[in-house]
Amino acid sequence: MKNIIVKELYRKIDQYSNKNIRISGWVRTVRSSNAFGFIEINDGSFFKNIQIVFEKDLDNFKEISKIAISSSLSIEGTVVLTPEAKQPFEIHAKNITIEGDSTVDYPLQKKRHTLEYLRTIAHLRPRSNTFSAVFRVRSLAAFAIHKFFRDRDFVYVNTPIITGSDCEGAGEMFKLTTLDLNGVPKDDNGKVDYTKDFFGKETNLTVSGQLSAETFALAFRNVYTFGPTFRAENSNTARHAAEFWMIEPEIAFADLNDDMALAEDMVKYIIKYVMKNAPEEMEFFNKFIDKTLFDRLQNVVNSDFGKITYTEAIDILKKSNEKFQYEVKWGIDLQTEHERYLTEKVFKKPLFVTDYPKDIKAFYMRMNDDNKTVAAADLLVPGVGEIIGGSQREERLDILEYRMEELGLNKEDYWWYLELRKYGETKHAGFGLGFERIIMYITGMTNIRDVIPFPRTTGSAEF
Amino acid sequence: MKNIIVKELYRKIDQYSNKNIRISGWVRTVRSSNAFGFIEINDGSFFKNIQIVFEKDLDNFKEISKIAISSSLSIEGTVVLTPEAKQPFEIHAKNITIEGDSTVDYPLQKKRHTLEYLRTIAHLRPRSNTFSAVFRVRSLAAFAIHKFFRDRDFVYVNTPIITGSDCEGAGEMFKLTTLDLNGVPKDDNGKVDYTKDFFGKETNLTVSGQLSAETFALAFRNVYTFGPTFRAENSNTARHAAEFWMIEPEIAFADLNDDMALAEDMVKYIIKYVMKNAPEEMEFFNKFIDKTLFDRLQNVVNSDFGKITYTEAIDILKKSNEKFQYEVKWGIDLQTEHERYLTEKVFKKPLFVTDYPKDIKAFYMRMNDDNKTVAAADLLVPGVGEIIGGSQREERLDILEYRMEELGLNKEDYWWYLELRKYGETKHAGFGLGFERIIMYITGMTNIRDVIPFPRTTGSAEF
Repeated sequence: MKNIIVKELYRKIDQYSNKNIRISGWVRTVRSSNAFGFIEINDGSFFKNIQIVFEKDLDNFKEISKIAISSSLSIEGTVVLTPEAKQPFEIHAKNITIEGDSTVDYPLQKKRHTLEYLRTIAHLRPRSNTFSAVFRVRSLAAFAIHKFFRDRDFVYVNTPIITGSDCEGAGEMFKLTTLDLNGVPKDDNGKVDYTKDFFGKETNLTVSGQLSAETFALAFRNVYTFGPTFRAENSNTARHAAEFWMIEPEIAFADLNDDMALAEDMVKYIIKYVMKNAPEEMEFFNKFIDKTLFDRLQNVVNSDFGKITYTEAIDILKKSNEKFQYEVKWGIDLQTEHERYLTEKVFKKPLFVTDYPKDIKAFYMRMNDDNKTVAAADLLVPGVGEIIGGSQREERLDILEYRMEELGLNKEDYWWYLELRKYGETKHAGFGLGFERIIMYITGMTNIRDVIPFPRTTGSAEF
Repeated sequence: MKNIIVKELYRKIDQYSNKNIRISGWVRTVRSSNAFGFIEINDGSFFKNIQIVFEKDLDNFKEISKIAISSSLSIEGTVVLTPEAKQPFEIHAKNITIEGDSTVDYPLQKKRHTLEYLRTIAHLRPRSNTFSAVFRVRSLAAFAIHKFFRDRDFVYVNTPIITGSDCEGAGEMFKLTTLDLNGVPKDDNGKVDYTKDFFGKETNLTVSGQLSAETFALAFRNVYTFGPTFRAENSNTARHAAEFWMIEPEIAFADLNDDMALAEDMVKYIIKYVMKNAPEEMEFFNKFIDKTLFDRLQNVVNSDFGKITYTEAIDILKKSNEKFQYEVKWGIDLQTEHERYLTEKVFKKPLFVTDYPKDIKAFYMRMNDDNKTVAAADLLVPGVGEIIGGSQREERLDILEYRMEELGLNKEDYWWYLELRKYGETKHAGFGLGFERIIMYITGMTNIRDVIPFPRTTGSAEF
């Protein structure tokens, strides 16, 4: 008899009604009397448990009655619809096999645990309701992203993780080496001799796939990356991790408006896909994690995103009566308090802020005609602030070189990036969405450590 | 007027016939007389070019007539079906805008280039026919993999890239650090003081997500990883890269037979998906890269994969009259020559070899009752040899601990992995497929450097 997953049973319950099936999972609860008992099992394929009814004619009735939580079982039995009960059906067991038992010191007993405690058992927390839901939603959101781009004929490009260049022209990076750190080889000047290293030069972990993605956009027109990126920033906040996944589309023959339209479509698509494909998980989040969740997500899906320039945003903030911690004046980087005020209080919906001062943005962003601002667009959403950063890229070789000189970047390191501007350049644009940020937004979870399987943060690389 | 992609035009040509459209792309060829001319453009969304016909009533007729290869153009014109010509339709241009011109020193002129040369211009090679096809197929194969698992309700898990543990219990790894290599801090014993490093301990880049994936399989039943993995091996071959992507499913309540069935289904699915969704690219590969390609792939899709044990394989090899470079005897690691003989000459189809000697396999593979072999299964395919390595995992805590002691592994480093065997363990299995290996197999490309956008190999991390 084929062993089926719980999701399959829920999906085709009519077909399985009164049939004998085989199913497996981990024990969530047990209740029993001398004559019969109930076990709820969960196999992780679906949010809901399945109720197993067993009676004392089972050979191992005694053992099963006392089975420890988290033990793994395989059950053969009959599917019985129970239209009057809490659960829509149950399994009347004919045979229960204990695949692996558990112990009373199982660290995830049925009681309320703090999220902090659960992080210390990251190998077991996916078995809890919350994390089971988070990681299924994460998986579905990843698929939604791939499907969104596939439906639009985007080419998925795996940009390199190991890099000799630093995309942002700044950023704290992890160095990568095979040198023996107990005796680092030195050159004649007493500096590290990287010619002895694996790649024969200094290398780092990527902070963004954008520059590489641009080379592909200028061959395939529409491309995207979706992979891990790294920041060695010493910022111990709920929103920063040293390792996180990022989605970076890059589109050619496209300007900043095309870029914003793509970002808006994508965000709405992901939310709708998850709402449709994980309704049980989403209800759980809305009930137990963030009671404003559905309202917030519906607002995103149903709004036409707003658009204002940075200069307009500064004006609005200045004229407001709000007390901000950080002073508002033209030229500042918007802080989360400013972003949230704009999107929550003023626009009450997602909002693109465009055309930021060049001095607070990266070298590759396209210079506007005013010579003061660049064609950047950040997407702000209620409840969070910035969730996407994008821009039209500088396609004019002379201006790009001027900007690199201004910022002290070494043009030789970017020879291939500059060559894109010589051989059939065209206007193009792109953006970056932090995958964990959108998962936090969709689930209501407020710490990045709780939406990534095994978080890496300052001082912590456990498991 | 909306700017459409070439793929869209080919897909819905009937709908666009005689309509005015706007399209963009890069010049592949130009021919012109005094009165009219032809340009073929390609926008990377599709393998085929589009022919643009232009006449001298264009304002910029002279410029367009002399346009350099790789220049980017946007064209407005009418779609005209040409049932008697080589190409099914052409665009009669009303207006052509030069988005970005190119120069005569464009490094990818229309002539035959060696693959070695093209690697030196990895930022431009996606614009060649071969690499345009390779990277679209790579993108489609990635989507096929996600879809295969999504259709089966597998949970996609992003296992960590930065790790404190070494999955294979061996393997040469890249170290990761934020320490200043010019002055590495030392502890009282003169050793590197990792407490000063970013994570407060020694960390490496992952060589496999398997151990982490197992924790998720024991919560979600069926999971898979698909992400970058790293080997700091000094092997300068056509099949090894320091950075490559790997697919690693892990299934609970499943044994080695379930594992092999999954691998067989997956390989067939990927091939069928690519054949169906990239027929032009596949014809190109079959014609210009490997004339045996279609036969080879059809054979994979249409065969029931064979199965023999390692011990049987050794017997067959011993009894054969083939001269092998490496001696055949029980206990050896099978070499590519042995693998290819078995799959190409003996079975003439894909073949699982199972139950390898424990001494040549990893500590986590399940010990068979003979105490000599483990429940491993490698998939060998004609033309290549091994393409997948899998196993049932050792779920019995005492035997797993015994194996780790035998191999001198530090059990404390694996405390969380061992705990999985205490709290509701069950039989489970999984395998690893090198993504670049399957792309090589599907395209006929013979060097891993030519199926990954920006290859990282010993001594080379360019771009």
